[in-house]
Amino acid sequence: MQAKARPPERNPDQLRTVGFELDVNRYAEGSCLVFFGHTKVLCTASVEDQVPAWLRGSGKGWITAEYGMLPRATHTRNDREAARGKQSGRTQEIQRLIGRSLRAVTDLSGFGERQIKVDCDVVQADGGTRTAAITGGYVALRLAFQHMLELGTLKCIPLTDQVVAISCGLIGGEARLDLDYEEDSSADADANFVLTGRSGVVEVQATAEKTPFSRSQLESLLILAEKGCDELAEAQRKALEVAS
Amino acid sequence: MQAKARPPERNPDQLRTVGFELDVNRYAEGSCLVFFGHTKVLCTASVEDQVPAWLRGSGKGWITAEYGMLPRATHTRNDREAARGKQSGRTQEIQRLIGRSLRAVTDLSGFGERQIKVDCDVVQADGGTRTAAITGGYVALRLAFQHMLELGTLKCIPLTDQVVAISCGLIGGEARLDLDYEEDSSADADANFVLTGRSGVVEVQATAEKTPFSRSQLESLLILAEKGCDELAEAQRKALEVAS
Amino acid sequence: MQAKARPPERNPDQLRTVGFELDVNRYAEGSCLVFFGHTKVLCTASVEDQVPAWLRGSGKGWITAEYGMLPRATHTRNDREAARGKQSGRTQEIQRLIGRSLRAVTDLSGFGERQIKVDCDVVQADGGTRTAAITGGYVALRLAFQHMLELGTLKCIPLTDQVVAISCGLIGGEARLDLDYEEDSSADADANFVLTGRSGVVEVQATAEKTPFSRSQLESLLILAEKGCDELAEAQRKALEVAS
Amino acid sequence: MQAKARPPERNPDQLRTVGFELDVNRYAEGSCLVFFGHTKVLCTASVEDQVPAWLRGSGKGWITAEYGMLPRATHTRNDREAARGKQSGRTQEIQRLIGRSLRAVTDLSGFGERQIKVDCDVVQADGGTRTAAITGGYVALRLAFQHMLELGTLKCIPLTDQVVAISCGLIGGEARLDLDYEEDSSADADANFVLTGRSGVVEVQATAEKTPFSRSQLESLLILAEKGCDELAEAQRKALEVAS
Amino acid sequence: MQAKARPPERNPDQLRTVGFELDVNRYAEGSCLVFFGHTKVLCTASVEDQVPAWLRGSGKGWITAEYGMLPRATHTRNDREAARGKQSGRTQEIQRLIGRSLRAVTDLSGFGERQIKVDCDVVQADGGTRTAAITGGYVALRLAFQHMLELGTLKCIPLTDQVVAISCGLIGGEARLDLDYEEDSSADADANFVLTGRSGVVEVQATAEKTPFSRSQLESLLILAEKGCDELAEAQRKALEVAS
Amino acid sequence: MQAKARPPERNPDQLRTVGFELDVNRYAEGSCLVFFGHTKVLCTASVEDQVPAWLRGSGKGWITAEYGMLPRATHTRNDREAARGKQSGRTQEIQRLIGRSLRAVTDLSGFGERQIKVDCDVVQADGGTRTAAITGGYVALRLAFQHMLELGTLKCIPLTDQVVAISCGLIGGEARLDLDYEEDSSADADANFVLTGRSGVVEVQATAEKTPFSRSQLESLLILAEKGCDELAEAQRKALEVAS
Repeated sequence: MQAKARPPERNPDQLRTVGFELDVNRYAEGSCLVFFGHTKVLCTASVEDQVPAWLRGSGKGWITAEYGMLPRATHTRNDREAARGKQSGRTQEIQRLIGRSLRAVTDLSGFGERQIKVDCDVVQADGGTRTAAITGGYVALRLAFQHMLELGTLKCIPLTDQVVAISCGLIGGEARLDLDYEEDSSADADANFVLTGRSGVVEVQATAEKTPFSRSQLESLLILAEKGCDELAEAQRKALEVAS
Repeated sequence: MQAKARPPERNPDQLRTVGFELDVNRYAEGSCLVFFGHTKVLCTASVEDQVPAWLRGSGKGWITAEYGMLPRATHTRNDREAARGKQSGRTQEIQRLIGRSLRAVTDLSGFGERQIKVDCDVVQADGGTRTAAITGGYVALRLAFQHMLELGTLKCIPLTDQVVAISCGLIGGEARLDLDYEEDSSADADANFVLTGRSGVVEVQATAEKTPFSRSQLESLLILAEKGCDELAEAQRKALEVAS
Repeated sequence: MQAKARPPERNPDQLRTVGFELDVNRYAEGSCLVFFGHTKVLCTASVEDQVPAWLRGSGKGWITAEYGMLPRATHTRNDREAARGKQSGRTQEIQRLIGRSLRAVTDLSGFGERQIKVDCDVVQADGGTRTAAITGGYVALRLAFQHMLELGTLKCIPLTDQVVAISCGLIGGEARLDLDYEEDSSADADANFVLTGRSGVVEVQATAEKTPFSRSQLESLLILAEKGCDELAEAQRKALEVAS
Repeated sequence: MQAKARPPERNPDQLRTVGFELDVNRYAEGSCLVFFGHTKVLCTASVEDQVPAWLRGSGKGWITAEYGMLPRATHTRNDREAARGKQSGRTQEIQRLIGRSLRAVTDLSGFGERQIKVDCDVVQADGGTRTAAITGGYVALRLAFQHMLELGTLKCIPLTDQVVAISCGLIGGEARLDLDYEEDSSADADANFVLTGRSGVVEVQATAEKTPFSRSQLESLLILAEKGCDELAEAQRKALEVAS
Repeated sequence: MQAKARPPERNPDQLRTVGFELDVNRYAEGSCLVFFGHTKVLCTASVEDQVPAWLRGSGKGWITAEYGMLPRATHTRNDREAARGKQSGRTQEIQRLIGRSLRAVTDLSGFGERQIKVDCDVVQADGGTRTAAITGGYVALRLAFQHMLELGTLKCIPLTDQVVAISCGLIGGEARLDLDYEEDSSADADANFVLTGRSGVVEVQATAEKTPFSRSQLESLLILAEKGCDELAEAQRKALEVAS
Repeated sequence: MQAKARPPERNPDQLRTVGFELDVNRYAEGSCLVFFGHTKVLCTASVEDQVPAWLRGSGKGWITAEYGMLPRATHTRNDREAARGKQSGRTQEIQRLIGRSLRAVTDLSGFGERQIKVDCDVVQADGGTRTAAITGGYVALRLAFQHMLELGTLKCIPLTDQVVAISCGLIGGEARLDLDYEEDSSADADANFVLTGRSGVVEVQATAEKTPFSRSQLESLLILAEKGCDELAEAQRKALEVAS
């Protein structure tokens, strides 16, 4: 398969249209529908007054994430994981990543012995669902903390920074930001970066799909990611200002 | 718990605001987001070119449904069925009902050896999710058939009628149409009716939650359901006209 | 398939031979083998001194039911659910129905914080297994309560009424009571009614297998069911008198 | 716990009352309800026209067994294995034993590429359920072969011998035949013997529950088992004569 | 298949080369790699300070065993049980046997309310894995008790005897000790004996694979087993002396 | 917890003692026991003559990996995944990584329609089990290909490069190579690198455990990894030369 050119209207270092629709769920303490182009992920943050057994009495809280995909989020329908009776390795890998990413910018001592479950359900998938889930999951989490602040449960929001994520890839030798599904399928290498609002690296996952890449190529992907993540962090701030 | 009065603006025989948002999924052959008040169900119809083993060589197709609820569709978060590793009895009961209801108005000989899977995922729940799923599932199914018609795969739409569904209940002696979650929780009896566009009965499920009811009370619920279903069928027709 | 006539010796409104063999299990607090023609269901009621977690401290008890079918209860052998590793949707639907039906005539505050598990195991199936299970399950439950009364655990039997159940169907336009397997397979509509000893309706489940039916046809099925249920309630009373 | 004496009416080398009720299931090719005292096991043999994949084309058939226990077969109710979602190690161990025992007396080349599934469901348990299952399973299997003979499917019955089984134990130093539940619970050693009609040994399973036993004690148990098995084989023959 | 002769260098009553490599695991309280010819089983004994719920407050401990096989322990690769999602009937049968055998020589009142889990993982299989597991499991268990003794947790080692196990079989009429995989596959009868260091019988499992065997043949197998077990017990003692 | 210094005998850029024991399994086409300090992983490569369904007829082969840990490979015993009935998210994540890494250096068109399953079972764990598994898995895979070459099944070995892997971490500001368990537990950031013999990057997984790290810190970890991987590749070559 020949490497496909981007449509002329999108540069290699350009994000797709990104948006956040806040408070889309009337029950969740925080919620957000995040769009990266055609990729849409519904994120809800649910606050529970109980921590896992291993944290009881520690004075600390916990944040965990779950990830799912509606059966027809994809080009062809996938079997429902609930019907198959187990979550795939991919699903578990992704939800562990989302959880780690959100915990990396949260002060777990700052919201009591509570657990916040962030559910990220992919309604439509066109590449980058895990990075959209992290970026939107942060927004839902922050809204949940704001809600607790308004109720007087918290004195301040226990977040130490923002967290955003983006995918990058090498396609026909070119480094590109924010791959859609078709680009992702034809990439020589594919990387997901989770960064904080101040460009600290939280997580890097880079995979050579076809041929190994070099140290400098990894560097070029990271530079691209930093640019994209700056823009995502800005978009998060704008969306949340509107909300507050 | 004392039986709660309806808000003055809704009569006992009045539906909540019902709406259909069509073609909400860019991959599914047919899709629809259906609203009954705050209850929102995303329905997609996926056409597959293979039937279950027991139908191979029969020349007939099959329609099946799956039902799911996002973890925070409800007031308090529910565990994800994929994580628990199995679908609850309730989920299975509902998806069997949706499948039977859709098959009841479809000519299974009319679309070749294909299987159509109708996924109904509850995004937000405020009572009546199964009846919303049937009513919206029909719209998604019909859109999938129209899509096949436009592609020339079908010569005509193999539907013999419309199908709609509504819940009714007895609350403090009063028969009410289209219960929301709070009404449903306090009902003495709760019934779901699946009717065709011409008021034929496809399915009745009536349960005395507290005290047994009488034959005439069942009759009064059915009369209410016929009124509501007439309006739902009209709403389906309007939505689909706009779509075609 | 042409609608098959009933054998001349059984009228459309006539039950099959119904019988109850009491105390068939030497360990269970209550037990009964119920026959509806060739359908045989073994029902046992087991009293446990512990309620589910959500009822602890409430002073109330709980009744739950489980349903199973021996592998060769049917014309051709079915796989054992224990071997397949899960209960089918049908099994779960039925056991939920049995449980609701028995709870509908029991005063849950009347036997302390205990749980009674009613197991209904189909030894031989010829149609109507769920309705036989409810009708026989009531007898097993009542015997368990009598046993507790004799032991002095209870002061009175916390049952507010009897509960019985029967299937009816439309076959070739004719409404028939108590379908056997062959009739059930060829029915246009199939309904299960759960009624109390005083003809109160506890549950109605009616399904159009082929073509939708009308409101008056549902009415005719219900009238038939009331007749059959009167006779079943009478048979329960006779069996239990012999027992006491 | 002190070793309990047998009731004076039963000698240490005496079986409990044993009986076979034949053809108790109207669908199974062969069936039998076997009694060893209060232990009752329902055995059905189901003939299927297909062998497991690894035997296809071999010209040989296969016999397999499944074992189950109704939840209230026992003094206190056990959870249903279908509900727990898996069969216990004990269940699997027993059904493997039953299958091996029946295959040991069958000519697997003598009934074509068919599989016979022998289901042994314990309706009431008072010790010795696995040995009763083998003894009754043989009867059900033989009846299934007779049925095939009558249909002309077989020219002769492909059984090379009878197979029977009995438990023995050491209690307070005394060797006893056919332990009931209470004896079994207090035994120092417990053994199950599967023998043919001509006293050939098919299987021995002997376990020291408390203290190890000696070679001569094993010998004395085997002698007891041979006596009991002779009587069981005679009882099988009588029951089957009546049946033919 | 013709019965294969033993290589001239091994007599029918001769064990394969048996060895124990002690303390092979740096974390386990006791560990041992046991060899019976090409069969290699890694045994670890892990001490936990908690007993199963049914023993709490009894002052007694418990010993349990688990058995596993690495996927390529065998001639052709077997699926991993963790991937298949359940342990086979064979696995469960074996681990129950190992646990019973170890408990038979342990004073469960002699090590407090602790649970010792003995894991037996087959690294390479060439027949006799379950008997090697018992023989090596005893060594691991004893080392764990010695470790507790050295720590001062125990005052004496709560073992009442040694326990060893060996397989024997009838091949072409000849009784042979310690079958390898190839012999086992062609045996007419196959037996596993678990004996104590003083030749007390703990467990006998004998199965006629092809034709039933006689009482005297069982006797001859048991005599062979006693000889082999004497040698195994001696080998255990030597290995453990070296260790202490 | 204060960052612990390395023992003076190991520099921050120094590997632990690494070794490969080849052909440790007599059945597997290729096998190797790999040591990284106290971490020991048993790797076997099993060749099967059948590919997954989606590759049939493609002329291509497939390589897949499975990962497991013996229950007492770790400081405190972990439950057996086969007993728990499912593989953890961590296990699945690791085995997907091993498979991708091995496929990255294999010409899948070069060994026919065969599947090679590489099993990596951790016998003892002291940090770095996944990187040891990749490094040892490569050796087992290569030995399997050599075996096929010797049998004449292959004309040349379809490997395009070596593949090795190493973990690095940031501890108290210092970048260190090849963390053991204790270092890993106290690291601020933890990264796994999979590189080819020519230093091409196959996979990078870097995670900030405590505080985000910078682009240049990631760079320093990668430089360390390149050094370690050069040495690992050299060690692989030496071990394999001895073997051939």
